[in-house]
Amino acid sequence: MTTEHDHIVKAFDEDLKHVDTVIAEMGGLVEAQLAAAIEAMVQRDAEKAEKIISKDESVDALEKNLDRSIIKLLALRQPMAEDLRVLIAALKIGSAIERIGDYARNIAKRTLTLAQVPAIGPANTVARLGQHVIGMLKSVLDAYLKRDAEKAEDVRRSDREIDAMYTSLFRELSTYMMEDTRNITSCTHLMFAAKNIERVGDHIATIAECVIYLVRGHLPENRRPSDGPDVIPAMSSGLRH
Amino acid sequence: MTTEHDHIVKAFDEDLKHVDTVIAEMGGLVEAQLAAAIEAMVQRDAEKAEKIISKDESVDALEKNLDRSIIKLLALRQPMAEDLRVLIAALKIGSAIERIGDYARNIAKRTLTLAQVPAIGPANTVARLGQHVIGMLKSVLDAYLKRDAEKAEDVRRSDREIDAMYTSLFRELSTYMMEDTRNITSCTHLMFAAKNIERVGDHIATIAECVIYLVRGHLPENRRPSDGPDVIPAMSSGLRH
Repeated sequence: MTTEHDHIVKAFDEDLKHVDTVIAEMGGLVEAQLAAAIEAMVQRDAEKAEKIISKDESVDALEKNLDRSIIKLLALRQPMAEDLRVLIAALKIGSAIERIGDYARNIAKRTLTLAQVPAIGPANTVARLGQHVIGMLKSVLDAYLKRDAEKAEDVRRSDREIDAMYTSLFRELSTYMMEDTRNITSCTHLMFAAKNIERVGDHIATIAECVIYLVRGHLPENRRPSDGPDVIPAMSSGLRH
Repeated sequence: MTTEHDHIVKAFDEDLKHVDTVIAEMGGLVEAQLAAAIEAMVQRDAEKAEKIISKDESVDALEKNLDRSIIKLLALRQPMAEDLRVLIAALKIGSAIERIGDYARNIAKRTLTLAQVPAIGPANTVARLGQHVIGMLKSVLDAYLKRDAEKAEDVRRSDREIDAMYTSLFRELSTYMMEDTRNITSCTHLMFAAKNIERVGDHIATIAECVIYLVRGHLPENRRPSDGPDVIPAMSSGLRH
């Protein structure tokens, strides 16, 4: 892997650093948004949720900014090989981070409803899933900034744990619903919140793949289905009726 | 808007045509996948669903192919202005189409479960939502191939109808669940299937924005929240308990 010092054109180094800075800023903001969204969900804090929703525009603005910078760089600097890969990867990473911001926003929107209905236990399991994904997001952003493909591989692998946690959570929530129909509203929104978190895991895996691509010049060979874990069969319904 | 005839480098014209061909092919395949997924869901046809799931790899392969072509073009042709915009838009459109393929696959996976539980009426409402979105997908692909920004604007606007249909469907499914807990499994999977379709609508709106960007050189001004309609409040639960 070449380092920034190998570059001949110094100005281009600065440009690439700027791209990294914007991605670090976007990543940090989205990480904070996601952490706050999960906290607000557990605390059933509608006020905090509203703040998260209104802040999502800053993420979108940063992504547009990033896109513009990258397109300008492509046009003006006509980069080749590794520099081109960095820019294409940054474009895709920016779009993945923006989507993660959308999921944080959606969890916050659901919290507005969850705050109106009685609290239920599985909210804490959803939050644990969230903590796990936030850890992955930190790691993948770090892997990007350090151009560390091995760390990215680790993150990509840990997406499987998320899938397993999500599947068990889905069962738990289904059981709660069947036991008491008054739980249906909260369980439904928690299911979607969990699904949002699981999708965040998918986007983190995509970012990890971009890091691997930009460092090694090719995508990882083994295919990762990007539509989440396999769907849970109708077991619980069959058991109960 | 300049046409292909204005280009000086004829070979580049051919390259751009190839990009359009791949996008048309991917789009056609994903449209067929989505239509089949919705048909299989209504018919509770697990065999058809399995076929859809296995075919998703072709979509992923086409996207990787498209990415590679675009990156090669960026490196070799060093395109400026409009050509650069076309390539960046194509990169984003390819990734949106691939995601739509993932949603079709996820609906098919849920059909494997739905086929095991009794049929319920709202599946037809989900299918109607699906038909609407398939129409939008056709239109946006057409708008891309014809570089028709106005048509893209129309598609982008119609995403709001999807949001309204989804919201009403969510209420219908919640009511079914509360009326009979035996409906919970099918309703949950239909809710997620509907959510998948609603997300497809979001990705179509993103494609529409890319078309507007590539034709006009800038994104539409008015912001569209990309995390779906506002979450439905806990009304039904409050009414019943």
